[in-house]
Amino acid sequence: MSLLDKPIRKKRIVVLGAGFAGLTFCRRFRSEFAEIILIDRQNHHLFQPLLYQVATAGLSMPEISRPIRSILSRRKNVTVLMDEVTGIDAENKQVILKAQKEPLAFDYLVIGLGAQNDYFGHPEWEAHAPGLKSLDDAIRIRQNLLLAFEQAEITEDPETQRRLLTIAVIGGGPTGVELAGACAELARVILRRDFRRIDPEKTKIILIEAGDRILSAFDPELSAEAEKQLRRLGVNILKNEPVQSISKEQVVLKDLTIQAGTILWGAGVRGNPLAAKLGIELDSKGRIPVRADCSLNQHRNIFAVGDIATLKDGLGQPVPTVSPAAMQMANHVARIIRDEIECRTQITHNRPSFVYNNKGSMATIGRAAAIAQMGRLKLKGYSAWLAWLFVHLIFLIGFRNKAFVLLQWAWSYFTYGSGSRVISGMDRTFRIKPFAVNPASRVDELAQMENQNTGSGI
Amino acid sequence: MSLLDKPIRKKRIVVLGAGFAGLTFCRRFRSEFAEIILIDRQNHHLFQPLLYQVATAGLSMPEISRPIRSILSRRKNVTVLMDEVTGIDAENKQVILKAQKEPLAFDYLVIGLGAQNDYFGHPEWEAHAPGLKSLDDAIRIRQNLLLAFEQAEITEDPETQRRLLTIAVIGGGPTGVELAGACAELARVILRRDFRRIDPEKTKIILIEAGDRILSAFDPELSAEAEKQLRRLGVNILKNEPVQSISKEQVVLKDLTIQAGTILWGAGVRGNPLAAKLGIELDSKGRIPVRADCSLNQHRNIFAVGDIATLKDGLGQPVPTVSPAAMQMANHVARIIRDEIECRTQITHNRPSFVYNNKGSMATIGRAAAIAQMGRLKLKGYSAWLAWLFVHLIFLIGFRNKAFVLLQWAWSYFTYGSGSRVISGMDRTFRIKPFAVNPASRVDELAQMENQNTGSGI
Repeated sequence: MSLLDKPIRKKRIVVLGAGFAGLTFCRRFRSEFAEIILIDRQNHHLFQPLLYQVATAGLSMPEISRPIRSILSRRKNVTVLMDEVTGIDAENKQVILKAQKEPLAFDYLVIGLGAQNDYFGHPEWEAHAPGLKSLDDAIRIRQNLLLAFEQAEITEDPETQRRLLTIAVIGGGPTGVELAGACAELARVILRRDFRRIDPEKTKIILIEAGDRILSAFDPELSAEAEKQLRRLGVNILKNEPVQSISKEQVVLKDLTIQAGTILWGAGVRGNPLAAKLGIELDSKGRIPVRADCSLNQHRNIFAVGDIATLKDGLGQPVPTVSPAAMQMANHVARIIRDEIECRTQITHNRPSFVYNNKGSMATIGRAAAIAQMGRLKLKGYSAWLAWLFVHLIFLIGFRNKAFVLLQWAWSYFTYGSGSRVISGMDRTFRIKPFAVNPASRVDELAQMENQNTGSGI
Repeated sequence: MSLLDKPIRKKRIVVLGAGFAGLTFCRRFRSEFAEIILIDRQNHHLFQPLLYQVATAGLSMPEISRPIRSILSRRKNVTVLMDEVTGIDAENKQVILKAQKEPLAFDYLVIGLGAQNDYFGHPEWEAHAPGLKSLDDAIRIRQNLLLAFEQAEITEDPETQRRLLTIAVIGGGPTGVELAGACAELARVILRRDFRRIDPEKTKIILIEAGDRILSAFDPELSAEAEKQLRRLGVNILKNEPVQSISKEQVVLKDLTIQAGTILWGAGVRGNPLAAKLGIELDSKGRIPVRADCSLNQHRNIFAVGDIATLKDGLGQPVPTVSPAAMQMANHVARIIRDEIECRTQITHNRPSFVYNNKGSMATIGRAAAIAQMGRLKLKGYSAWLAWLFVHLIFLIGFRNKAFVLLQWAWSYFTYGSGSRVISGMDRTFRIKPFAVNPASRVDELAQMENQNTGSGI
């Protein structure tokens, strides 16, 4: 009997999560001997690097998100299910889903469930300092930010006004820096002419960093440059200030208590809690330890890719939790699985190791302000920002036409387009009236709204 | 003493509502002897004629809404307050606002608060058949529509699937026709390739009209043409079928009960309930009766404009509740008030009467399908649709650059752009998990979500 006579059963690959890792896997994996089932609890893929722009009303939702189904509509071997994972039975090779009565069997499992905000053991802080991981987070932050200006405009109490016009951003990593820079632009440039009773330019933006410099993953020279650029935008930077506690509109530091109408969290992330369903030991950040080929030690047919995985690559270097690494890992795993399926071999123990190709990193600070580091090349200011723009355009996978997005960006750049400053979801989804009778209870309501909306969080 | 020596006190004009009427007034009124305070509970103006496209995922929010502040940012004499009106004291010339301790005094009051959905004495229907008046309505309808497809894809019960893939639209006026046509395009064209287990082309769309023809405000010939165009898109039209009752996913007609996963209401509107605060007698549709100059009989310094007003114009013809009428009325009132303020005359009883200039009406049915009637000129199909496109572009006041919007539309037209099909607000604002364990309770949850979100309605 020759190989060609052997009956072929299609292998089933189940992919969890349609982030950069999961989606790259589905786009890259091609084999007629396999079917892919992609599970995500949202119907859209999110271009997370630009999420901070939605939160600060610079871009609108559809510009950075796209339905998973339409990205994959031409891939007939991919079935997308909008569902939630409730269990992973590694021994019996099946995934338990919320909406399916029967468990979903798999030959291979690719876990790309990403990361969530990490409040360092203080989950109660989340209610007062929302982080930025999902589209809903971004929309909520945008609502809070814009409502703070609206409320400051109608209040007569100068102290309330001062509090409402203070924004505290916790964490001096790329997310915190981007948020602080974008908040500064929102207040000082975009909203400048829009109010009559308050002066948005007086908004105080405070970036709080526990370490001794911001953007510590970059070269110290670039950190210093980023600080300079942020200060030019009017951001106050507090360094060596670990946060002691956060409560309603209040951040407590060592010797200082900050009253702020808006508090944003950009200080850290940990693996998606679903990782615990595997029943194996995770690292201190809740991530799944994998071999150099990205598969689990105990289960060679299960792979973890992207921010939920922790590994040292084939050269022994730890792989950072950034989107290029997630996409490279997904490509690597797609190649391994395809080879094993197409060659109809058993799962091999000689798989190639993943090697992370670090093409550089960049952080954007504001319009025409950024830093970038590619090997020895360091860029600052306008040139770094152009590089940032270029890279983000290249990687906007499947997002309309790239030329069109560029046009849209160019348009917003020159006009400070205002469409995304619309506050929606007030009258129904939040189910509170926008304002109460006096400033004090108005602030209460804002906090209540915040609570309501984080109650179902992590 | 000459006129010039008389001391001048700036008159204060309070405008309620930033719809077509209120906003047109603020943009048109120019006098250095007056200050305007514009009150709206939302922060944005809405281009309502295109709202159905947001509900059916054709356009996204920022394309049809814009912050009021940014539209009026250069009008230094206009102050915008995001607040809610709780009372109108016509005798003492003041408005009571929720967030302001002191009542707001006015010399002139312009009421442009618009209309709300009318459920003909059955407010309990709203929970099951949402109407389309605000951005939040539209987003909610879009979520329900898209979730119905997602749930149909994962359910295994054919009856549940059939119900989820049935959309009932109640009311054969322009709103109902636009919604039915857009739903048909969404299911049959846009989502066609996106699912693996269901065939979106099998979606059943039923348009229910109580009278004997749809679009009864148009010439019968055009009604017939619209029906033909709708049928071509695959819409079932039921005529002479007044709705007997609506409950969860069920519409009861005379001899027929329709099970539908999505029920949409486009059957009628009535004046904003705030009209009752005036303490005068309203018409049967809750609208404010005004004189031919748009002012109240009892209070000549209070005007009602747009959909909240009911009047016969200077030629004795009733003014329809459409946006061109609202804008014309606002212009008329702006001229009256400016004349009285600039000439420093007392309020005169010889004001000019408003005369409605009917430039025609149009209804759009789908991509490249519409009807239009301008005097004796009747247009159908592509030419009517081009006229519709042209008119809507002209009147997109203040919405980015019109050429840019045209470009965006052209782009969507050729590519069926997918950005706006993103479901947001699921994990936090709705606070329910997308799906339950079995199809029956899944449907319950959907209904529950619906209930939660209409609980705070009218």
